[in-house]
Amino acid sequence: MADDTKNETSNQMWGGRFASGPDAIMEEINASIDYDRKLFRQDIRGSLAHAAMLETTGILSSEDCDKITHGLTQIGEEIEKGEFSFSRRLEDIHMNIEARLSDLIGPAAGRLHTARSRNDQVAVDFRLWTKEELQRTEKALTSLIEAFLDKAERHADDVMPGFTHLQTAQPVTFGHHCMAYVEMFGRDRSRVRDCIERMDESPLGAAALAGTGFAIDRKKTAEALGFREPTRNSIDSVSDRDFALEFLSIASICATHLSRLAEEIVIWSTPQFNFVRLSDSFSTGSSIMPQKKNPDAAELVRAKTGRINGALIALLTVMKGLPLAYSKDMQEDKEQVFDAAASLELSIAAMTGMIRDLAVNTTAMKAAAGSGFSTATDLADWLVREAGLPFREAHHVTGRAVALAEEKGVDLGSLSLDDLKAINEAITEAVYDVLTVDASVASRKSYGGTAPERVREQIGIWRKRL
Amino acid sequence: MADDTKNETSNQMWGGRFASGPDAIMEEINASIDYDRKLFRQDIRGSLAHAAMLETTGILSSEDCDKITHGLTQIGEEIEKGEFSFSRRLEDIHMNIEARLSDLIGPAAGRLHTARSRNDQVAVDFRLWTKEELQRTEKALTSLIEAFLDKAERHADDVMPGFTHLQTAQPVTFGHHCMAYVEMFGRDRSRVRDCIERMDESPLGAAALAGTGFAIDRKKTAEALGFREPTRNSIDSVSDRDFALEFLSIASICATHLSRLAEEIVIWSTPQFNFVRLSDSFSTGSSIMPQKKNPDAAELVRAKTGRINGALIALLTVMKGLPLAYSKDMQEDKEQVFDAAASLELSIAAMTGMIRDLAVNTTAMKAAAGSGFSTATDLADWLVREAGLPFREAHHVTGRAVALAEEKGVDLGSLSLDDLKAINEAITEAVYDVLTVDASVASRKSYGGTAPERVREQIGIWRKRL
Amino acid sequence: MADDTKNETSNQMWGGRFASGPDAIMEEINASIDYDRKLFRQDIRGSLAHAAMLETTGILSSEDCDKITHGLTQIGEEIEKGEFSFSRRLEDIHMNIEARLSDLIGPAAGRLHTARSRNDQVAVDFRLWTKEELQRTEKALTSLIEAFLDKAERHADDVMPGFTHLQTAQPVTFGHHCMAYVEMFGRDRSRVRDCIERMDESPLGAAALAGTGFAIDRKKTAEALGFREPTRNSIDSVSDRDFALEFLSIASICATHLSRLAEEIVIWSTPQFNFVRLSDSFSTGSSIMPQKKNPDAAELVRAKTGRINGALIALLTVMKGLPLAYSKDMQEDKEQVFDAAASLELSIAAMTGMIRDLAVNTTAMKAAAGSGFSTATDLADWLVREAGLPFREAHHVTGRAVALAEEKGVDLGSLSLDDLKAINEAITEAVYDVLTVDASVASRKSYGGTAPERVREQIGIWRKRL
Amino acid sequence: MADDTKNETSNQMWGGRFASGPDAIMEEINASIDYDRKLFRQDIRGSLAHAAMLETTGILSSEDCDKITHGLTQIGEEIEKGEFSFSRRLEDIHMNIEARLSDLIGPAAGRLHTARSRNDQVAVDFRLWTKEELQRTEKALTSLIEAFLDKAERHADDVMPGFTHLQTAQPVTFGHHCMAYVEMFGRDRSRVRDCIERMDESPLGAAALAGTGFAIDRKKTAEALGFREPTRNSIDSVSDRDFALEFLSIASICATHLSRLAEEIVIWSTPQFNFVRLSDSFSTGSSIMPQKKNPDAAELVRAKTGRINGALIALLTVMKGLPLAYSKDMQEDKEQVFDAAASLELSIAAMTGMIRDLAVNTTAMKAAAGSGFSTATDLADWLVREAGLPFREAHHVTGRAVALAEEKGVDLGSLSLDDLKAINEAITEAVYDVLTVDASVASRKSYGGTAPERVREQIGIWRKRL
Repeated sequence: MADDTKNETSNQMWGGRFASGPDAIMEEINASIDYDRKLFRQDIRGSLAHAAMLETTGILSSEDCDKITHGLTQIGEEIEKGEFSFSRRLEDIHMNIEARLSDLIGPAAGRLHTARSRNDQVAVDFRLWTKEELQRTEKALTSLIEAFLDKAERHADDVMPGFTHLQTAQPVTFGHHCMAYVEMFGRDRSRVRDCIERMDESPLGAAALAGTGFAIDRKKTAEALGFREPTRNSIDSVSDRDFALEFLSIASICATHLSRLAEEIVIWSTPQFNFVRLSDSFSTGSSIMPQKKNPDAAELVRAKTGRINGALIALLTVMKGLPLAYSKDMQEDKEQVFDAAASLELSIAAMTGMIRDLAVNTTAMKAAAGSGFSTATDLADWLVREAGLPFREAHHVTGRAVALAEEKGVDLGSLSLDDLKAINEAITEAVYDVLTVDASVASRKSYGGTAPERVREQIGIWRKRL
Repeated sequence: MADDTKNETSNQMWGGRFASGPDAIMEEINASIDYDRKLFRQDIRGSLAHAAMLETTGILSSEDCDKITHGLTQIGEEIEKGEFSFSRRLEDIHMNIEARLSDLIGPAAGRLHTARSRNDQVAVDFRLWTKEELQRTEKALTSLIEAFLDKAERHADDVMPGFTHLQTAQPVTFGHHCMAYVEMFGRDRSRVRDCIERMDESPLGAAALAGTGFAIDRKKTAEALGFREPTRNSIDSVSDRDFALEFLSIASICATHLSRLAEEIVIWSTPQFNFVRLSDSFSTGSSIMPQKKNPDAAELVRAKTGRINGALIALLTVMKGLPLAYSKDMQEDKEQVFDAAASLELSIAAMTGMIRDLAVNTTAMKAAAGSGFSTATDLADWLVREAGLPFREAHHVTGRAVALAEEKGVDLGSLSLDDLKAINEAITEAVYDVLTVDASVASRKSYGGTAPERVREQIGIWRKRL
Repeated sequence: MADDTKNETSNQMWGGRFASGPDAIMEEINASIDYDRKLFRQDIRGSLAHAAMLETTGILSSEDCDKITHGLTQIGEEIEKGEFSFSRRLEDIHMNIEARLSDLIGPAAGRLHTARSRNDQVAVDFRLWTKEELQRTEKALTSLIEAFLDKAERHADDVMPGFTHLQTAQPVTFGHHCMAYVEMFGRDRSRVRDCIERMDESPLGAAALAGTGFAIDRKKTAEALGFREPTRNSIDSVSDRDFALEFLSIASICATHLSRLAEEIVIWSTPQFNFVRLSDSFSTGSSIMPQKKNPDAAELVRAKTGRINGALIALLTVMKGLPLAYSKDMQEDKEQVFDAAASLELSIAAMTGMIRDLAVNTTAMKAAAGSGFSTATDLADWLVREAGLPFREAHHVTGRAVALAEEKGVDLGSLSLDDLKAINEAITEAVYDVLTVDASVASRKSYGGTAPERVREQIGIWRKRL
Repeated sequence: MADDTKNETSNQMWGGRFASGPDAIMEEINASIDYDRKLFRQDIRGSLAHAAMLETTGILSSEDCDKITHGLTQIGEEIEKGEFSFSRRLEDIHMNIEARLSDLIGPAAGRLHTARSRNDQVAVDFRLWTKEELQRTEKALTSLIEAFLDKAERHADDVMPGFTHLQTAQPVTFGHHCMAYVEMFGRDRSRVRDCIERMDESPLGAAALAGTGFAIDRKKTAEALGFREPTRNSIDSVSDRDFALEFLSIASICATHLSRLAEEIVIWSTPQFNFVRLSDSFSTGSSIMPQKKNPDAAELVRAKTGRINGALIALLTVMKGLPLAYSKDMQEDKEQVFDAAASLELSIAAMTGMIRDLAVNTTAMKAAAGSGFSTATDLADWLVREAGLPFREAHHVTGRAVALAEEKGVDLGSLSLDDLKAINEAITEAVYDVLTVDASVASRKSYGGTAPERVREQIGIWRKRL
C-alpha cells in the first residue's frame, strides 16, 4: 500500500482555528462531550442499573458493585455541583465518567463495562433522556390545553368573526375558536403518549451489536430504569434512532400548530384588528412609542417552527442510507433533539403564558363579526328549512338580498320585510331571528358546532380528560 | 379606492404558456381537478352518506334522496368507465360531480349541499382516502415483514460479519440481521395503526367552519363512512390536516428504514462484497457486460426517501403560520400526500420483492465474518468470565493476542496455546471453543442476542403478530 | 451461492396495483418515460448535434448522418403532433426515440450511439432543459420587476404605514415598499444569471464516465447546442447535478420572496386593513356573499413555497452520499426540477398579474399611516438636530410627548406648542413641519430612503437595468 | 377591553425550568446575547464607522466622536480579554455594548445611535460576519482543491475501477477521479464568490426601515466597512436575509459534495474494498482490534450534510410569509448560519486533512479495475472503429465474447485469437492492445477524458486558477 501520509504537514495549511493541524480538527469534529454531558444523569442511572444487575447475576462481586455504586454516586454529585472537570480528550460523557470512576475506585471500575459497550450505553442514555422529555412535553401540553379551556369557558358566548381566507365568513364564538386549539394540542399530546408507549424499551445489554455471552438479565435492567421491557433485537437496539425521529416529527407538527396560533396573535394585535393584546410580559415596547407593543413572543414562537422542522430534516438526512448497525454519523442525533426539545418546551411555555395573560377585546370582535353580511348563510339555511327551497336556489336568493343590502349600505338584518319579500315572497318576519350574530351562533347546534352550549359541552368533556 | 386595474392587459405580457392572460393563469393555479379527481370514489361515498342522513333526519325527502342516490351511482360508474368528462372550469372534483348530478336529476341536485360545505366535503374525502391508504400501507408492511421472517428462518444459522462503521465488528447471523429490519418495519406498522386510530373521525357536518343549524346526525354519517365517531370541533374539522402530516412523517421514517436496507443491498452487491445478488426482476443488466447487474431497484428505493422527505417538508411549510379556519394554501395538501403515498407503496412492494427473491451468498458472508479477528471480543469476554480479569484488562490482553496473530498472519483461533499462555497464563485449551465464528454466534444468548435459538424465538413471536 | 429465488411467486402476494408481480413493480419504479418525455426536444437536438459532429470528424458517413438527421426530424414532428406512441417497456425518452429511429432508418440508427452513452445523453438533455428554464425565469422576473416599477412610479408619493412586527412604525410610501420587492426580485434575477453562466457547459462526449477513444470534437457539439464550452472532467460530467440543485435553491429563495408578498396581499385584503383589492381575475368570490373576495391566487402562491422547498430538500437528500459516477438514484432529479419550475413559473406569472391589476386604497393607507404616533421618531430626530439633544435623551422627551398626546386622545401634531414646550422648552413652532406623515416621508432623503425623490431616483436606475 | 390578565399567576404553573413565570420565559425566548455576542467585533466596527461618518458630516462633534471611539475600542479589548460581563437582561450584543459605553463615557454614548436603529445595526453586523465567513470558505475550498490537485498529480497514471451503480464499469485513473472533485469544489468556490459579489452592500443608514432625515453619508460608511456600496432601498435593507439564505444553500450543495466523497472513503476503507486507508489522525481504533480503523472523520463529515440542510430549511421556513419590514422571527437567522458555517468549515478542514493524508492502495485498485470485463466497451469501440460495425451490433458481438470469457473463467484479454475470430472474423491480433486497463485508460483522450495526459492538462489549468 502506497502510503501518501505526509507527516510533515505544516501548521499553516490549516489556518484559522485549526492552527494545530489534524489532531485539533479531529478532536473538534469527533468529541461530543460539549453536548452529551447533558446525559450525565442518564449515564449514571444506566451504569448503576447495569452494575446492580451484574451483581445479582453473579457476574460482579458485591464488593465491586458497592465500590462502583459509591463511585458513580459521588461523580453524579460532583457534576451536579459543577465540580467535575470534563475533558475533550476523553471524547464523550461515558469515557469522562468511566475515567473518573477509575480514579476514584481503581481496577474495579474496569469491571463495570462487562457485558456492555458504548453502543448500547449511549442508546440507553439517549432513550432515557428522550422519554423524560416526552413526559415533560406531555405535561406542558396539558398546561396549554388547560389555559385554553379556561379561556374558552370565559368566552363561550363571545362572538367573533369566523375566518376563511382571512376574510369574515360566519360568526363563531371565541370559546369555540379556543377549543379548536384544544383539539390540536390534544392530538399532539396523544402522539406524545403513543411515542412513549412505542419507545419504552431498554436497549441495554445489546452490547456492541450482537448481544453478549454473559448470562445477563436484561429484564432486570429494563425494570430498574423504568422501561416496560427490553428490546428484542440487539442489532436494531444499537442502530435504531426511531424514537428520536418520531419525537422530532411530533415536535414539528406541534410547532406547526403553535405557529398558526402565533400568526393569529400577530395579526389580531395589529391596530387594524385590535382583537387581542399580549400582556407586557410577552411583548416588547418602544421607548418612544408607548402605544406600540410588539408581539415578540408570538413572533419568536412562530419562528421556532423553522428551527424544529430543520432539526427533523437534519436527522432524517443523517439516517438516510446508513448501513446497520452503528455508524459514527449517528452521533449527530443528540444536538438536533436537544435543540428541538428546548425550542418546543420554550414555545409551549411561552404560548401557555401568552394565552393565560391574553387581553381579549370582545367588543371589537363582536363588531367585526357583525359586518360583512356574515349571516348570509343563515338566511340561505332559513330559506331551505322554512321555505323549502333547494340549497342552491336559496343561495341565489340570498345573493340578491346581500346585493340589495350592500346597495343600501346596511346589514342584512336592517333590510325591511318588504324588501326581502320583493326578493322572495316566502320570507316572513321570523327571518329576522336568524340574522343577528348571536342568533346565528346560537343556532349552530350540530355536534361540534359553535353554539355556546356545544362549546361548553366539549369543555366539560376535556376537563375530564386532563 | 384608486383602482389600478388594467383591463387592457395585452396578451403579450404573459408570454409562453400563459398567452391568454390572467384568466388562464388563474385557472392553472386554482384548478385542482387534475389531481383531486383521484378522490371521486370518496366524494361519492361521502355524498351518498350525507344524502341518506338528510333523509333519515327529515331534511331531504325520500324521493329526492332516491334521485340523488341514483344520480351519484351513475356518475361513479361513468368515471370508473372513463366516460366522464372532467372540466377544469368547474375547478374541482366536488363541482364536477355536482354539475353532472344537476344535469342528470335537475333541481333535486341542489338539495344535496344542504347542511354542508366544500370545506367539510373535501376534508371528509381526503380523510377517507388517507385512511384507506394507511390501511394499504399496513398490509404492505405486513407482507414485507413476512418476507423478512421467511428469510430470517432460512438463514437463522448463517453467519455474516456484523458491521459498525461498515467495518467488521463481531459475527452475527444473517437471520438476526433480517430480524433487525422486522423490528424497524414493525415499528412503522405500529405508527400506521396509531395514526389510523387517531384520525378515524368524520369531519362531515362541520359545514363551512361553524357547524350548521340543521338538525343533522353526524354520528350517522360517521358510521356510514366507517369512521369511529364525528370530530368534536367544527373549526378544527375544516382547518386540520394533521392526518396528512402524520402520514407523511410516518412515511419519512419508513422510507429512512428502506433506504438503509437499499444501501446495504447496493454495497453487498458489489463484486468486492459479493454477499447478495438481486434477481433479474429487480436489476438491470448491460448488453455488453453480462456479469454486470445494476441494483437499480434498490437505488430507486433509496432515492425515494428524498422525495418523501420533500413532501413532508412541503406540507409542514404550507401549514406553517396559517390562520384558522380554511385557507386556499391547504389545497396543496393532496398532491404531496398522493405522491408520497405512491412512492412509499411502490418502495415497500419493490423491497418485498427484492427480499423474497434475494440470492444470499452464505459462503462469502461466512468467510468475511471469520476474517479481521472478529472474535476478539469473545476472547476478552472469556478472560473476564473464566479467568476473572476486569473487562478493561481483558481487553488489553486481547489486544496483545490480536497483535501477535496479525504479526504471524493468522487468525486468533490459529495461535498456539503456548503463544496464548505467553500473553496470559490463565488461558487454557477451552478458549478455542469461543474463537470460531459459529461458537461466537452461538454464545450470544442474551435476550435479543444473535444466537440462532434467540433468533428463532423472535421469529416465532413475530409470526404470531402478523 | 445459495439462490433463494422463488419463481413461484404467486400474484396474490403483491395485492392491489401490483397484481402482476415483480416485473410490473420494476417497470413502475424503473421507467421514467412518463416524465422524461418532456425532454424530447432536447434529446433530439442533442442527437442531431452529436451526429453532425460524428460526420465532421469522419466517424459517421454522410449518408448515415443524413438518414439519422431525417429520422430524428421526423420523430420530433411525430411527437409534436401527438402521433408518437411512447412505450414504458422502452423505459425512457432516449430508448423510445432510438427504437423509433431504428424502425425508420434501420441499422444506421445503431451508429448514432457511437462515442456516447445514456449517461452523458441524459446529462446534456437535462442541462439544455434547465438552461432554457433559467432563461424563462429570467424573463419572467423581468416582467415582475417591471410591474413593480410601474406601480412604484404611480405611487411614489402615496403614504402608507411602514411596519415592523406588523405594527405601524414610521410612514413610508407605497412606491418605496414596491421598490423593496424590486430589489428582492432583482437579486433573484442576478442569481439566475450567475447560475446560467456557471452551468453553461456541455457534458456530451463524456460517454459512460471515462470519455471515449473516438476522436470526437466536444467543442463542436457544445457550440452547436449553444453551450459556452464542454465540461472538463468526464466523471463529473455524468455525476454532477449541481445545476439542478442550484436552480432549486434559487427557486426556493425566490419563492420565499413571493410568499412574503402574498402574505401582505392576504393581510391587506382583509376588511380590517382594506389597503388593497385583487382584481376579479385573481380572486374567487362566494355565491352568497358578494362582498367576499378571497385572495386565492395570493394564498396559492404563498403555498407554492412549501412545494418548492420540498423539491430542494428532496434532491439534496437524493444526492447525499452518492458515490461517483452515476447511480440510478439520480433519475429522481427531473421530476423535482420540473415540478418546482412549473410552480415557480406559475407563481411569478400570477404575481405579475396580481400586481399589475392591484387596486390600491391610498386613502386607507394614508389614514393608517397617520395614526399611532408614527412620526414620533421624526420628533426625536428634530430634537437631536435642532435642539442638540443626545439621541437617547431625545427619545425620552418624545416618549413624554406621546404619552401626553395619548392621554389627550390626539395625534402628536395636534398638541399645542405650550404643551410641547412644557415637556422641553427648546421646542419651537418649526417642529410642526416634521409631524405630518408627508413631511416625515419627504424628510427621509438619505440614500435609499423613502423620500419620493429618492424612490424616483431608484425607479429610473432600475428602468435602465431592465 | 376585557382584560383577562391574571397577575396572580402562581409559579407552579410553569414547572421545571420556568419556575419563575412569564418573565423568565420571555427572557429565555427573547434574549439573543448568548449567540449574537459572536458579532461583537462587527458591532464595534460598524459603530466606529458610523461615528466617524457622523463626525465628518457634522452631526457629531469631534469631541464626542473621540470619546465614542475610545470607549468602543476599550470595550472591544475587554471582550477579547474575556473581561466583559454580558447581561441577558440587556438582550443583545448591541444593547450590551451601548450600556457599557454609557458607563464609560456618559451622555455622549447617547449620540452614537443618531440616524441609525437596531434594525440596520444588526443587518450590518450580520452581513459583515457572513461576508468574512464567505471569504474564509473561499480560502478553505482553495486548500481542499489544492490537496486534490496534489493527489491527482501523484496518481495521474494509477488505474482504478470507474463505478456506476457502485459496479465496475470502465477503468479510470485515480487522478481523474480526484479531478472530478476539483470540479465540484471549484463550482462551490465560484458560488461563494458570486454570493460575496451580490451581498457586498452596506445596509447601514437604512435606520428603522425608512431611511433618515439626517444628512448622513452612506457611501462613506460602506467604504469604511469594506463594502462595495450602500444598499438601495431602506425597507429591503432591514428585511432582507438573502445573503444568509444564499450562504446556506451554497453550504448545502458543498456539503452534498463532501458527503459523496465521505461515502466513498467509508466504502473504500472496508476490508472488502481496501482501496484507501485514512491516517491515524482521522480515524479511531479499537483497543482490542488493532486492524480495525473506523473512518470516523468521514462519517462525521457525511452526517454534517443533514445538519446543514436542516439549517437551510430552518431559515427558509422562518422567512416564509413574513411581511416587511422587520419581524422578530428574523432573530432566528443567526444561529442557523453560525452553526452551518462552523459545520462546513470543520468539514472542509477535516476533508482537506483526510485527502492530504490518505494512503492509496494502488495495487488493490488496479486489480479491481481489471476484473469484471471492464474493457468490454473498448472491445466494442474497437469493432466500430476498426471493423466498421454499427455500435449496437458491436455491443452484441462483445456480449458474446464476454459470455465466452466468463464461461472459461478468464478475462477478455486472455481469450485466444481463434476464440475471438470465431465470434467475429473481423477481429485481429491488434485487438489485444485495447483489452488491458492501461491501454483502455490511455485511449480515452477525448477532451475531459481519463487519459493521463488529459488529466495532467486539467491539473495544469487548475494550478493556474488557484
